[in-house]
Amino acid sequence: MTIQAVVFDAYGTLYDTQSVADVTEEAFPGYGEIITQVWRIKQLEYSWLRSLMRRYQDFATITRESLAYTLRVLGLQVEDDTFARIIDRYLHLDLYPEAPTALAALKDRKLAILSNGSPDMLNALVSNSGLDRVLAATISVDAKKIFKPSPEAYLLIEEELGVAPASVLFVSSNPWDACGARAFGLNVAWIERVTPEAMALACVKSDLLAPLTLFKALRTQMDALGIEVDHRIRSLSELPKVIAFHES
Amino acid sequence: MTIQAVVFDAYGTLYDTQSVADVTEEAFPGYGEIITQVWRIKQLEYSWLRSLMRRYQDFATITRESLAYTLRVLGLQVEDDTFARIIDRYLHLDLYPEAPTALAALKDRKLAILSNGSPDMLNALVSNSGLDRVLAATISVDAKKIFKPSPEAYLLIEEELGVAPASVLFVSSNPWDACGARAFGLNVAWIERVTPEAMALACVKSDLLAPLTLFKALRTQMDALGIEVDHRIRSLSELPKVIAFHES
Repeated sequence: MTIQAVVFDAYGTLYDTQSVADVTEEAFPGYGEIITQVWRIKQLEYSWLRSLMRRYQDFATITRESLAYTLRVLGLQVEDDTFARIIDRYLHLDLYPEAPTALAALKDRKLAILSNGSPDMLNALVSNSGLDRVLAATISVDAKKIFKPSPEAYLLIEEELGVAPASVLFVSSNPWDACGARAFGLNVAWIERVTPEAMALACVKSDLLAPLTLFKALRTQMDALGIEVDHRIRSLSELPKVIAFHES
Repeated sequence: MTIQAVVFDAYGTLYDTQSVADVTEEAFPGYGEIITQVWRIKQLEYSWLRSLMRRYQDFATITRESLAYTLRVLGLQVEDDTFARIIDRYLHLDLYPEAPTALAALKDRKLAILSNGSPDMLNALVSNSGLDRVLAATISVDAKKIFKPSPEAYLLIEEELGVAPASVLFVSSNPWDACGARAFGLNVAWIERVTPEAMALACVKSDLLAPLTLFKALRTQMDALGIEVDHRIRSLSELPKVIAFHES
């Protein structure tokens, strides 16, 4: 089957959510990385919980609420302008280094983002990083008022791009997102940014029991959700190979 | 409004999920507590993710899959009989010490459990702990094939007990569960087992950055989901006071 569209998750896949750590570290020396890890885990939890509770609020709200929770639990006091500066960094996340070249290599297909991010957040992020020049669409789940991995969210791809699931390659580094997209019926390439071998190397016992290593493991290793993704790759640069394999 | 029924969450509220740590520590010395913490976080994540993905499997399956994930990520090899022994401990969790007396003090109301647990798990747990003698019903979300905090799950209380939400006091120590029940329309008492003050005391910086302290914080501190519970209490023993206040 021909792949007509390649659709990317944004946070963690094209954009490095950890890149906000420079601002959190500047604001709270010694806590920079742990803030980003706790913040991310709660941001995801709140997106799932609000979806299940049918109490949708957009991702900008959830991102603020999960940051406020994180600083409170860590016992950190924050001024309004510091809070605003951290949140603003979320609109200027770093692209993964290989992203611009990898996307350019796929320019004969329809390229898009499908993200939990709210339209304002995504439009700012895409424009600030220059990806607006290569993307045909930036799709926010906000149109459905429910977050990934709900099937309604993935349905937006066909509704917005007019491409059937069997002709879409969905790309995500988030294990739960890759599983959700596969369960929906998309072809899925999961980016395994940290292999089990690399994780095992990092995980001599003393390191593993440190929260940064552990949080990284919990967000990067494939989840046990009874779903097999179609392709496991190490970086965005492998996508042309995946498409060729898929179409052969 | 009179409280006709008091309905309890099971895991973490009546039963201490951390009590499995004696078996995990025996099986994997030095890793006992961290296994239970990672296991619990993934068990919850998988219940939410499978609900959103509409790929329901019962809680017994999720409990096994999240334990397998945990051991894999921690780099621990496990024999089948050890795995089975750990899982079996989940059918013999310790009651919180105050639970039997606290429930006896409420015996003029209809008492029940509403839990994510599968019927087999719950029936074994309730019977093994002797609570079958005081509970009018043990309700599993399995009847709806979706987990808390979905509204369908909380709807089971009225369907099974015949008591309207306004006459139910729901009791949970899980912040997300307390919020979900409140969003549904139940009266909610949230058990704050670790106060922010106690957490702050434990969280001199070096401790906070240890994963056990951090995981405990993430599971015990109230979440930022835009929901206010009706009552914050410290233990099950305060429930008669809550009911009296509610009816005054």
